Amino acid sequence: MHIGLIGLGKMGFNMRQRLRDAGIEVTGFDRNPEVSDAASLDALVAALPVPRTVWVMVPAGTATDSVITDLAGKLEAGDLVIDGGNSRFTEDQRHQALLAGRGIGFIDVGVSGGVWGLANGYGLMAGGEPEQIEAALPVFDALRPEGPREESFVHVGDVGAGHYAKMVHNGIEYGLMQAYAEGYELLEAKDIVRDVPGTFRAWQKGTVVRSWLLDLMVKALQEDPGLAHVAGYVEDSGEGRWTVEEAVANAVPAPAITAALFARFDSRQDDSPAMKMVAALRHQFGGHAVRRPGEGPQAQGSPA
Amino acid sequence: MHIGLIGLGKMGFNMRQRLRDAGIEVTGFDRNPEVSDAASLDALVAALPVPRTVWVMVPAGTATDSVITDLAGKLEAGDLVIDGGNSRFTEDQRHQALLAGRGIGFIDVGVSGGVWGLANGYGLMAGGEPEQIEAALPVFDALRPEGPREESFVHVGDVGAGHYAKMVHNGIEYGLMQAYAEGYELLEAKDIVRDVPGTFRAWQKGTVVRSWLLDLMVKALQEDPGLAHVAGYVEDSGEGRWTVEEAVANAVPAPAITAALFARFDSRQDDSPAMKMVAALRHQFGGHAVRRPGEGPQAQGSPA
Amino acid sequence: MHIGLIGLGKMGFNMRQRLRDAGIEVTGFDRNPEVSDAASLDALVAALPVPRTVWVMVPAGTATDSVITDLAGKLEAGDLVIDGGNSRFTEDQRHQALLAGRGIGFIDVGVSGGVWGLANGYGLMAGGEPEQIEAALPVFDALRPEGPREESFVHVGDVGAGHYAKMVHNGIEYGLMQAYAEGYELLEAKDIVRDVPGTFRAWQKGTVVRSWLLDLMVKALQEDPGLAHVAGYVEDSGEGRWTVEEAVANAVPAPAITAALFARFDSRQDDSPAMKMVAALRHQFGGHAVRRPGEGPQAQGSPA
Amino acid sequence: MHIGLIGLGKMGFNMRQRLRDAGIEVTGFDRNPEVSDAASLDALVAALPVPRTVWVMVPAGTATDSVITDLAGKLEAGDLVIDGGNSRFTEDQRHQALLAGRGIGFIDVGVSGGVWGLANGYGLMAGGEPEQIEAALPVFDALRPEGPREESFVHVGDVGAGHYAKMVHNGIEYGLMQAYAEGYELLEAKDIVRDVPGTFRAWQKGTVVRSWLLDLMVKALQEDPGLAHVAGYVEDSGEGRWTVEEAVANAVPAPAITAALFARFDSRQDDSPAMKMVAALRHQFGGHAVRRPGEGPQAQGSPA
Repeated sequence: MHIGLIGLGKMGFNMRQRLRDAGIEVTGFDRNPEVSDAASLDALVAALPVPRTVWVMVPAGTATDSVITDLAGKLEAGDLVIDGGNSRFTEDQRHQALLAGRGIGFIDVGVSGGVWGLANGYGLMAGGEPEQIEAALPVFDALRPEGPREESFVHVGDVGAGHYAKMVHNGIEYGLMQAYAEGYELLEAKDIVRDVPGTFRAWQKGTVVRSWLLDLMVKALQEDPGLAHVAGYVEDSGEGRWTVEEAVANAVPAPAITAALFARFDSRQDDSPAMKMVAALRHQFGGHAVRRPGEGPQAQGSPA
Repeated sequence: MHIGLIGLGKMGFNMRQRLRDAGIEVTGFDRNPEVSDAASLDALVAALPVPRTVWVMVPAGTATDSVITDLAGKLEAGDLVIDGGNSRFTEDQRHQALLAGRGIGFIDVGVSGGVWGLANGYGLMAGGEPEQIEAALPVFDALRPEGPREESFVHVGDVGAGHYAKMVHNGIEYGLMQAYAEGYELLEAKDIVRDVPGTFRAWQKGTVVRSWLLDLMVKALQEDPGLAHVAGYVEDSGEGRWTVEEAVANAVPAPAITAALFARFDSRQDDSPAMKMVAALRHQFGGHAVRRPGEGPQAQGSPA
Repeated sequence: MHIGLIGLGKMGFNMRQRLRDAGIEVTGFDRNPEVSDAASLDALVAALPVPRTVWVMVPAGTATDSVITDLAGKLEAGDLVIDGGNSRFTEDQRHQALLAGRGIGFIDVGVSGGVWGLANGYGLMAGGEPEQIEAALPVFDALRPEGPREESFVHVGDVGAGHYAKMVHNGIEYGLMQAYAEGYELLEAKDIVRDVPGTFRAWQKGTVVRSWLLDLMVKALQEDPGLAHVAGYVEDSGEGRWTVEEAVANAVPAPAITAALFARFDSRQDDSPAMKMVAALRHQFGGHAVRRPGEGPQAQGSPA
Repeated sequence: MHIGLIGLGKMGFNMRQRLRDAGIEVTGFDRNPEVSDAASLDALVAALPVPRTVWVMVPAGTATDSVITDLAGKLEAGDLVIDGGNSRFTEDQRHQALLAGRGIGFIDVGVSGGVWGLANGYGLMAGGEPEQIEAALPVFDALRPEGPREESFVHVGDVGAGHYAKMVHNGIEYGLMQAYAEGYELLEAKDIVRDVPGTFRAWQKGTVVRSWLLDLMVKALQEDPGLAHVAGYVEDSGEGRWTVEEAVANAVPAPAITAALFARFDSRQDDSPAMKMVAALRHQFGGHAVRRPGEGPQAQGSPA
C-alpha cells in the first residue's frame, strides 16, 4: 500500500517511520523541505496510486481546515482523506460534506500514544463509513501496536466519533494525571513519608492504580526526584476544554475532569483576580490583613 | 446586668463597647493591661455579682481551652460561661462537661459580624440548655442588631450547635465569596466589559445577587478599582476546613464550599507540586516542553 | 415617553405594569391576544411615535432571533431595539449588525429581579453605544428601583456587555444558591441542630451571609419547613452553562459556579451512568457487592 | 518461615494461600472456625516459633484496635506485629507505642490488589523501623508479585507511612475511577458514538490512558454492556474520606479526588436536601415551577 502523509511534525514524522517499518509506502509532505518527500501538495497527489489515501496530520483548526480544503480541490472521486490530527469533532461533518461533494471519502481518527507511539504503536479511534474504514485497515494495522486489533483500534461510530472519542480520551487523561498529581502532593506534604519516588515505583506492580501514566511518573521522578527542574505551569491543548464543553452541552456532570482543567488554568496565573477579590472582601468585613503584591505575609486579623 | 468578658482583641474590644452602650455593665479582662479592666482572672471573678456570667472571647483552641479550664477552678455552682469564640463545635461538649462537674453552666455562641458588629450588631447562634440561654438573653439582645430577636439570634440546639451553625455560616461565607470572586474574574477577563466596578455597584438594588458581601465588594472596588494593591493570597481561619471535614464525616456533598477552600490553598502556593507533576508527565508522554522554575514559557510540543 | 414591548410573559407582563406605573406609555404585543395591546407586530410599530423604541422580552434563542429579524424589516432608521431577554451575549453583535444595516440602533440589557421586579424594581445592565443608552434612560429609570441610578443600572460596555454581565450575574447566582444549599444540608444532617429554619432566620440581620437570597430561603422554610413538598430536581436555563463555557474559553478557573451547574445536572439523573461504572469497577477489583437497579443495599466486600 | 495471620476474610484468606504457595508456613486465626487454623488467639501465639511474627488483617478501627491490644498482652519482647489492614495512619503511632511498651515491634503495611492479589501478588507499602522491616522481608516477598522488589514493595517511611501511602493510593484510585467514569458517561451521551465498550477495549494498548483499571472496565463492559445490572450506587470505605481530610489538614488542593468522593455521596442520596433548597429558591425568586417529590417534571417558569 502507498499513502500520502501531510504533516511531518513530532507526531507525523514518527508515524511515517512506523508505517514504513510495517511495509507501507509513504510519501510525506511538510512545509519544512528538510523532512518532506514531496515538493508540494500537487506533487504528493501526483505521486500516489489511485484511488489515493491521504492522511492529514497537521495542527487542528485553521491548518487542518486549509489542508482539507486544498485536498478537496486536488483529489478525485474515490480518493480518501483521513484526518488523524486533534481536530474538534464538530469540524468533521463539515470536512466530510466538503469532500463528499467531490466524491472523496473521509475518516476522522483519534491517535493516542505521543512520542512513544513510534516504538509502541498508537491507539486509534475512527469515525466514518464502514467501507471506507475497511479500506484503510492496513494503515491502521501498521500504526497500532501488535496484538489483537480490537485492543488498539476501534470504529467508534459515525463521522466525528473518532475525534469525539479521542477528545474524551484526553479529558480522561487530564483527570487521571490530576488524580496522580494530587496524590503526589499529598505524599510530598507528609513528614513521615521518606521515599516518595520509591512509593510510586512500588505501585507499578500489584496495585489497583498501576498504569502507563504511573510508569511515566516513576520515570520522571527517577530523572528528577523532587521535580526541582520543572515549574508547576501546565498548558492545555484544547481537548480538555472541549470535553468540559461537551459535558456542559450534554448535561453530564464531569467534576474531576473539570477540576483538572481548572487546575491548569490556575497554574498559569501569576496572581488570581478572583483571590484578590476574596482577600479584599475579608479585609472589608473582618479587618483581615491583606498581602500587598510582592510582599510577604502579615499577621492575620480576627475571625468573622 | 453585669458580666465578665475575657479577651479584648478585635472582636472582644468592640463587643464590650456595644454591651456598655446597651447598658450592660462589663468587666473586661485581657492579657494586655492597656485594654483590661481587671488585673487578673481572679480579680475579674471577684468583681462580678453572683451568679456570675463570663463571656469568653479568645482565640479558638488552646487559648479557649486554657481560659475555660481556669474558670472551672475559679467560678462557682450556678455561674455561667459563654464561649463566643470560633471554637470547633467538637470542643464544646468537653467544656460543658468540665464546667458541669462544678455546677457551672455553659453556652456556646457563634458570633458573626466582624468589624461591623459594633455599629450594626452581631448575628448570634447559641447552643445549650434553654434555661441557661434564657438567663443570658439580655446579653444577646444587647449584642445583636435592633429589630425582631429571631432575625439575629437563634437557639440552634444542644451544646455545640451554636458553634456548629457558625461553622456552617462561615463555610457558606467561603462559598459566597468564591462565587462572587469567580464572577469578578469573568468580568475582568472580557474586553467588551468596560466598567467592572460599576457593574457590581449596579447589582446592589433589584438583582437576585444583592447582599451585604456585594456591598462590601462595591466598597472594595471604590477604594481600589482593579484591586492593584491586594495580592491574591488568602488565609483560612479554620472554620472552612471544619466545614469540609463535617461534609466528609456526614456524607454531604459540598463541592462549592470545598472549591472555595481549595482556591485559598492554591492562592498560597508559590508553585504547585501537583502541577509540577502534571507538567513532568506531559513532557514524558508528549514531549511537551516544560517551563523551568523562574523561566518564561517555551514553545509547546505536539498533542498526545 | 411611549415604547413598544414585545413579549408579555412572566417577566414582560410585570415590566409593562411597572413602566406604566412610572408614567411610561406602553404598547405591548404578545402572541396571546388576551394580554396583547396590539393585534400584530405591524400594529405595534404603527402605534409608536417616531423615533420608535421597542423592548424585546421573549425567550432567548430562536424566538428573539425571529422577533429581531422581523423588526429589522419593519422599523426605520433612527429607531431603537432593546433586547432585554436572556440572550446569549454572542448573539448581540449579530443582531446589532443586522439592525445597524437599516440604521436602527440596538441595546442589549440584562434584567434581574424575577417575579419581585414589579414591586422592587429590576437591576439592569446595558451594552451598546452611549448615545443610544442615553436615549433609553427614562425607560431604565422606570424599571429599576428608586434611589441612585448607579445602584441599579450600569452601562457595562460595548454591545453584548449587558448580556455578558447578566450571564455572569446568573453564574454567581448559581454559586450563591449552591453555597447556601450545601450549608442547609450540613445543618439538616446534624442531630444537635434542632432549629434549621430558625438558624437561617437569625442570619438575616448582622451576619456576613445576609442577602436577599437568604431572605428567600427563610421565606421558603417558613412556607415548608423541611421542604417536604419540593423534590431535589433543578433545571438550568442556559446562563449557567454559558458562564462555564466562558470560564473555559477565557481560562478562568470557576470551580464553585461549575460545581453548582454540575449539581443541577446530577439532580436530574435518575441513575448516574458514571456511578454505575464506578460501582462496576469496585466490584471487579475488590469483589465489592453492587446494588442492582431498584434494590436496597447489600453487604459490602473487603477493602482493596 | 512461620507466621501467624489474624483475619481470614476476603483479603486474609487469599493472602494465607499466597504465602503458603510461596513456602511460608502460616497459622491463621479467624473467629469463623471453618477457616481458622488455630482455636484461639492463645493457640495461635503458642503455635508460632519465637520470635513471633503476627500479621493482622482485620477490619480497620475497633476490630484492629482490639486485636492489637490483645496481642500486646500475649506476645513477648522481640516479637513483631504487622498491621496489614486499612487502618487509618493516625492509629499506627498509638499501636506502635502500646506494643513498644512490651518490647514488641510494629510495622504498618498498606496492601493493594483486591481479589486479584492471590494470583497477581499484592502491592505493599510499609512504615516502621528498618530492622523490623528487614526481618519481615520474606513475608513481603511472598505476597508481592514476582520481579524486582522495588516495583511492588516500598519502605515508605516512619511508623504510619505505610498506611498513609495506602490511603493516598486509594484516594488516587477514587480519582482515577471518577475520571474514567465521567468519560464513560460522555461517550454514552453522544449519539454518533456507536460502540462504547469497543472504544474502551481499543484503549488497552497504545493509548495514554491504558491501565489496569481500564482493563477492568473492559471486562465489566464485556460482562454487561450498558451496565444494565448495576445501580449507580457507590459505597466508600473510609480511605477516600481520610485522603480528603489530609488534603484539608495539609492545605493541599485535591479537587479531583474530592469530586470523586462527593460523587459517591451523591450516588447514595435518594433526594438531595441541597437541591431541594435550590429548587425552592428558584421558585421563590423566579416563580420557577418545582417538581413535587415523586412527580414528573412540570413546565419551567421565566428566567430571572
